Amino acid sequence: MTLDSHWFTEVCEEGGSALSLKIKRKLHEEQSEYQRIEIFETEKFGNLMVIDGFVMLSSRDNFLYHEMMSHPALFTHPEPKRVVIIGGGDCGTLQQVLRHDGVTSALQVEIDERVTRLAEQYFPELCENNSDPRAQFLFGDGIRWMKEADAGSMDVIIVDSTDPIGPAKGLFTEDFYRDCHRALGEAGVLVQQSESPMYHMDILGEMHAAMRAAGFDTTRTLHYPQPVYPSGWWSATMACKGVRPEDFRAEAAAARGFSTRYYNADIHRAALAQPEFCREAFGD
Amino acid sequence: MTLDSHWFTEVCEEGGSALSLKIKRKLHEEQSEYQRIEIFETEKFGNLMVIDGFVMLSSRDNFLYHEMMSHPALFTHPEPKRVVIIGGGDCGTLQQVLRHDGVTSALQVEIDERVTRLAEQYFPELCENNSDPRAQFLFGDGIRWMKEADAGSMDVIIVDSTDPIGPAKGLFTEDFYRDCHRALGEAGVLVQQSESPMYHMDILGEMHAAMRAAGFDTTRTLHYPQPVYPSGWWSATMACKGVRPEDFRAEAAAARGFSTRYYNADIHRAALAQPEFCREAFGD
Repeated sequence: MTLDSHWFTEVCEEGGSALSLKIKRKLHEEQSEYQRIEIFETEKFGNLMVIDGFVMLSSRDNFLYHEMMSHPALFTHPEPKRVVIIGGGDCGTLQQVLRHDGVTSALQVEIDERVTRLAEQYFPELCENNSDPRAQFLFGDGIRWMKEADAGSMDVIIVDSTDPIGPAKGLFTEDFYRDCHRALGEAGVLVQQSESPMYHMDILGEMHAAMRAAGFDTTRTLHYPQPVYPSGWWSATMACKGVRPEDFRAEAAAARGFSTRYYNADIHRAALAQPEFCREAFGD
Repeated sequence: MTLDSHWFTEVCEEGGSALSLKIKRKLHEEQSEYQRIEIFETEKFGNLMVIDGFVMLSSRDNFLYHEMMSHPALFTHPEPKRVVIIGGGDCGTLQQVLRHDGVTSALQVEIDERVTRLAEQYFPELCENNSDPRAQFLFGDGIRWMKEADAGSMDVIIVDSTDPIGPAKGLFTEDFYRDCHRALGEAGVLVQQSESPMYHMDILGEMHAAMRAAGFDTTRTLHYPQPVYPSGWWSATMACKGVRPEDFRAEAAAARGFSTRYYNADIHRAALAQPEFCREAFGD
């Protein structure tokens, strides 16, 4: 069958596939300084944000991505206090980070302020904690900012970016990872969204290699479902300095004092398991 | 954007979503005694079988489903010898079952012989082991067949069916599960494809309840990715008689003498982990 104009469709060239979501109406559209941002009201996925034609998030299923971009990294670090988010303009990752009582500062460095302003309007549930005194907002270039950051000034860095094309391209390079490595303390965790294991094993392989070349002891990919992204199977890759992914604070994760919808200690362990074809490609 | 006629599209009403795959051409189309079967050659997913408009399998990613429908159940049973597959006409599950040396008989009970004949033609890689002397084929109604089966005559039952509409509806009932329970030996495992945790929590909840009402001690849902199915996140649910899912033969799974592309002992354990919202809905 052919879908009519009541659907938003994103084509994934690498997959020879497309995902469509049924929409009620377009709520907003603008060309910001950096990109084209659209907001739709969908039939079943709540509100949807699309940037340059690519789905960023929906109200219904963003909890998967945001929980998995934050909690595994924070429970891997022995005592995360200073967290920096590069990108993450919709504030969903920031919200999850702030659920950790031990965090003393959470800085979001987003290049496009319009993403955050639109999230406040169309995804207010993700922005409820933006007035937390530990939250800080800086709108600017995360790559340049990281280059100038003080050495040893962060515990966890979360790279919550768009795909490695356009403005986010420089976030997938050895140079950037070296700056992150320097900015992290003696124990430090970097985590970055790393596309689909189904379609993007080349990107994943290059990311592992670049992170190790930049000085990180260990790299490990986390797997989780994300229905609105190509293939529905998504990943985040952790690069660790002085800590090991398998030594994460499982008891603290199990006894966390906040509610989640996807994440728990078993899911954390599960996300670390490597499918056989990934194991062959980049080890355990 | 709107997709042109070079795409096959399956709409998922429950999800308000649709998945499309780019096609090169239609290879075959027929109305069998039971259903409408189409075979396409896709751009990136190899061959694609569609039944009554729903994607059944693609050459590229069926390994996920077939490995997860077979190996967890077989490594949960202490010594699986006699395996029955209800449905599974494409022979992909049968092929995985036959990789276990200890299996002495693997019987596939498929209602529609045409599915198997078309699999032999368009998915020959799944049918390579069909001449194994342990493999048996019966074309008929699996529900009626199970009702008449000898008590205690099976170790593992795999229900590899279409969705719970049309001919497969009776496979999702307490009556059928009671027949399976009776047909299994003192130790026995039933596993059934159980739709998407993203879209079908109602079906999953009813399945757990019906399996327990039919006499099974324990039920447990396994989670895994399946890009060509709605949401990309799929499940299988195990019902156990006299064995426990968490006591699976992990050492044997790790030392299995056959190659896999997705499954391994870590992935088995990972698939058993329950997302927080599933835990709330049907326990660990």
